Amino acid sequence: TLLGEKCFACPIIVYLSKRGNSILQYRNILLEGFILYNGNKYHITDNPDGVINMGTSENKLCYDLLHKRLTKPDMLHVEPSLLQYTDWRGHPFLREEVAKFLTHACRSPRPLKADNLVVMNGCSSLFSCIAAAICDPKDVVLIPTPFYGAIAEDVGLYSDVKLFHVPLECEAEGKDSRPFHLTVEKLEEGLQRAKQEGLTVRAVILINPHNPLAEIYTQKEMLDFLQFAKRNELHAIVDELYMLTIFVESVMFYSVLSFDSLPDPQRTHVLWGLSKDFAMSGFRIGTLYTENQDIVDALVHLGCFHGVPGTAQHQVAQLLKDRDWINEEFLPENRRRLKAAHSYVTRELLTMGIDYIDSPAALYLWTDMRKYLREPSFEEEFRLWRNFTRHKVLISCGQAFSCSTPGYFRIVFSDQQQYLRLGQLFLQNTQYLKQDDTNSDNAGIVRATLSPLSKPVDPLTQRDAPVPAPVSLAAEDLVSVGCQASNPAESLGSLIGTLRHQINSSDWLEKNTPQLSAGEDPEILDVFKALLQRAAK
Amino acid sequence: TLLGEKCFACPIIVYLSKRGNSILQYRNILLEGFILYNGNKYHITDNPDGVINMGTSENKLCYDLLHKRLTKPDMLHVEPSLLQYTDWRGHPFLREEVAKFLTHACRSPRPLKADNLVVMNGCSSLFSCIAAAICDPKDVVLIPTPFYGAIAEDVGLYSDVKLFHVPLECEAEGKDSRPFHLTVEKLEEGLQRAKQEGLTVRAVILINPHNPLAEIYTQKEMLDFLQFAKRNELHAIVDELYMLTIFVESVMFYSVLSFDSLPDPQRTHVLWGLSKDFAMSGFRIGTLYTENQDIVDALVHLGCFHGVPGTAQHQVAQLLKDRDWINEEFLPENRRRLKAAHSYVTRELLTMGIDYIDSPAALYLWTDMRKYLREPSFEEEFRLWRNFTRHKVLISCGQAFSCSTPGYFRIVFSDQQQYLRLGQLFLQNTQYLKQDDTNSDNAGIVRATLSPLSKPVDPLTQRDAPVPAPVSLAAEDLVSVGCQASNPAESLGSLIGTLRHQINSSDWLEKNTPQLSAGEDPEILDVFKALLQRAAK
Repeated sequence: TLLGEKCFACPIIVYLSKRGNSILQYRNILLEGFILYNGNKYHITDNPDGVINMGTSENKLCYDLLHKRLTKPDMLHVEPSLLQYTDWRGHPFLREEVAKFLTHACRSPRPLKADNLVVMNGCSSLFSCIAAAICDPKDVVLIPTPFYGAIAEDVGLYSDVKLFHVPLECEAEGKDSRPFHLTVEKLEEGLQRAKQEGLTVRAVILINPHNPLAEIYTQKEMLDFLQFAKRNELHAIVDELYMLTIFVESVMFYSVLSFDSLPDPQRTHVLWGLSKDFAMSGFRIGTLYTENQDIVDALVHLGCFHGVPGTAQHQVAQLLKDRDWINEEFLPENRRRLKAAHSYVTRELLTMGIDYIDSPAALYLWTDMRKYLREPSFEEEFRLWRNFTRHKVLISCGQAFSCSTPGYFRIVFSDQQQYLRLGQLFLQNTQYLKQDDTNSDNAGIVRATLSPLSKPVDPLTQRDAPVPAPVSLAAEDLVSVGCQASNPAESLGSLIGTLRHQINSSDWLEKNTPQLSAGEDPEILDVFKALLQRAAK
Repeated sequence: TLLGEKCFACPIIVYLSKRGNSILQYRNILLEGFILYNGNKYHITDNPDGVINMGTSENKLCYDLLHKRLTKPDMLHVEPSLLQYTDWRGHPFLREEVAKFLTHACRSPRPLKADNLVVMNGCSSLFSCIAAAICDPKDVVLIPTPFYGAIAEDVGLYSDVKLFHVPLECEAEGKDSRPFHLTVEKLEEGLQRAKQEGLTVRAVILINPHNPLAEIYTQKEMLDFLQFAKRNELHAIVDELYMLTIFVESVMFYSVLSFDSLPDPQRTHVLWGLSKDFAMSGFRIGTLYTENQDIVDALVHLGCFHGVPGTAQHQVAQLLKDRDWINEEFLPENRRRLKAAHSYVTRELLTMGIDYIDSPAALYLWTDMRKYLREPSFEEEFRLWRNFTRHKVLISCGQAFSCSTPGYFRIVFSDQQQYLRLGQLFLQNTQYLKQDDTNSDNAGIVRATLSPLSKPVDPLTQRDAPVPAPVSLAAEDLVSVGCQASNPAESLGSLIGTLRHQINSSDWLEKNTPQLSAGEDPEILDVFKALLQRAAK
């Protein structure tokens, strides 16, 4: 895959170490997409030409419910201990509440224990800590692909742990098989391959419900995977971040914490958090449940990097304690809204003849857009991603998840109005999907023309002839300045580096600035100048 | 020093990697002391036999002011963006407020820019990120000793960066000199020594006001240090965490951000936060100001590990925006209370003939207790520390700050009632300071006798004959079980490891448990049994 590759043409930044340069150049399409969106968010009135984000997995359907609960008076509580240093595993009162809540939510046969819990500011932090505690630098962790791409950075950036891919086939391979079917045989084969390469394999990561496939593994499947881990003395890191995001009530989900017994409890570590199931990714709460006290102890030492404000810990405890609100208000209404959004988007996909994995879980659909590729390559997939991005729709391409087959995309459906737009996007204008984006490079950095689609279409305010409006700089625009358009492998950071290099080593700045000031939107020019100044430094 | 040494007698924990074992065994007396305190906090009515904490640098004098402000209605605010992913540098609205606040507080000649700011969950996180960005593993950073000991872990645990000590002399070395005097010559000498050892030196850490010396460096001194850094192409990491904690108004503090120009702005990085100056260490807010955008960009990639909840970011912005409250209520009252507490404790120290560095800054006093050592060694210093701890008073010994001379202690004075106790502690019972604690080892793990001092003395409720009460297990008790009492270099984690090893490899458990059940306090026995069970696992 293209992930993890670096732009060797980029200059080394002298202020940073080799590691610092490598951190800067770490390729992460999910983050790059998010940065594009975050700097230019679509808003129906304030920024109608902004980016519509169907790429970042966030639940934006339940803000009203959350607002109501999170502004109740019990949330505004301060006491001395909340303003002081505390246990780096999290305040005992919070770990008690999380233990009670997970006992209930996971249908654990025994009460889960607060002492087996660690609460940190998000699951990225927990992945990073666990990787540091159980792996040495360059050790590897098995992971079936596609997988939520940020995990590569979670274990890699600080802890220098590599993921070893176990590729899943996009087509079913027999009568009991299904697309992207994870089996113990595949894990065994991956493990053997890693060992043959002389690598030290310390763990396997299992995601259930799966990200990005949205697949729910059965109790038997998970047990088989855990037994595979035990046989091979691998830690099993079980990511159950979407455990409550299942919107068809007849579908049962089995957390590994619901099992009568775990095959290897000292090597089984279960992650959960508030980001997905409680639609609060900005609240930064991740939880680890493990019976291994050595790991808990190691995490205490790393906890100073991943602490949560005491007052926020209080709020989370209050939320999880309010079982009436959770069971009678939030969860049923959340399921209802997710189901409606899911139905809408799958209907549109069906109309367009785009296949997807059907699942009543998670916030996204794993779609097969191979028919829009001119050839089956990741360059083509990236071209398509850039086409979407250029047209101000952010979705996530398969290579961001290390998918072994090009042409798959993850589409997030859990948004209020924006998802309505998706259907129209595809229905009204599909011709651009195969359009060669190198044509538009000729238009220069500030003259990328907008297709009618870049004007958002809201059912209530839709007009017949949307007018073109200023565009902001995006990754693909920079490509046309600094790098070959045929080389899509550079990260945004790398591209800025290349741009800077070009500017420093030529009279490019003198030559190019003046022509931009003629007749262009002054706001665009300001953005462009700022970027140039920064690059020229 | 003894810091950073490991207990080679301890068994390797098989579930953890070499790095994981090393994390567990990382020696940090400050953290160990805090854990002892946190599990057994002194409370005047609920836990009168708990530990009194004069070791952790926290300001506990202003809770009433903070409570009043932090429970105002503007603090309870939720909007969608606060619950969603955002810029990993911190929400723009928060960085704007921090920039405005620091412009004001540092008397910056130019408005500081939000784009030069990164907000993370504490300065430990910022130290860790900066170390990763500017250093490769095994690179070193110069630091004058004594220094706030946790920085060794901040740069070491994840980023594998070592601190290279520049020892300051405890005695003045000439007429313009003073105790622990930092000079450019000392920095130069340290740099040369590091280079001779073949090390790559990437930065120097400067703390002002200093921790633990409480010293305030002048404008000229700081400028000289920054010029030293520039001459040698070193990054200067300037920790100004106590910049507003100066309680004599006539004393001026010059932040490096107040300078007309910085010698090397691309290599100067200034840390600040809410922990000390706003008495909110549990709120986890640290800020970095740097003009180096490459470092800011690198920190964006690491930001996912160090995020702050959106709602907490809102609260911090509200707080910093409320300049009336800060300038007319909080800061003047905080100064007044700090000054009173400082005066009280220094008066007691003078009475006892204990020297300290006189400074109107910070939350602690750097005291010279060399006269209580039977010989000038760190073992003796550690014995004294254990004696304090055994008597339920936590203060911090010099080796926790890598001080090159044994016998110095940092005493935190910014506490409500407890500091009153300090004077009495020393005045009433000084004889135990030289007492040999190995005697009490004979008494066994649950029979450590309490001196009258272990009963806290409150001026309002003081009684003549305090009665002995249950003690909890402390580090020094474990020493007597598992390790030689004469070897004080093991960390609490190591000691538990050794204990476990002893138990597993012998019939120690059978032999030792029964004798403990006879006539001892049942609560103590429970704690001991729980520890044994955990160790025997």
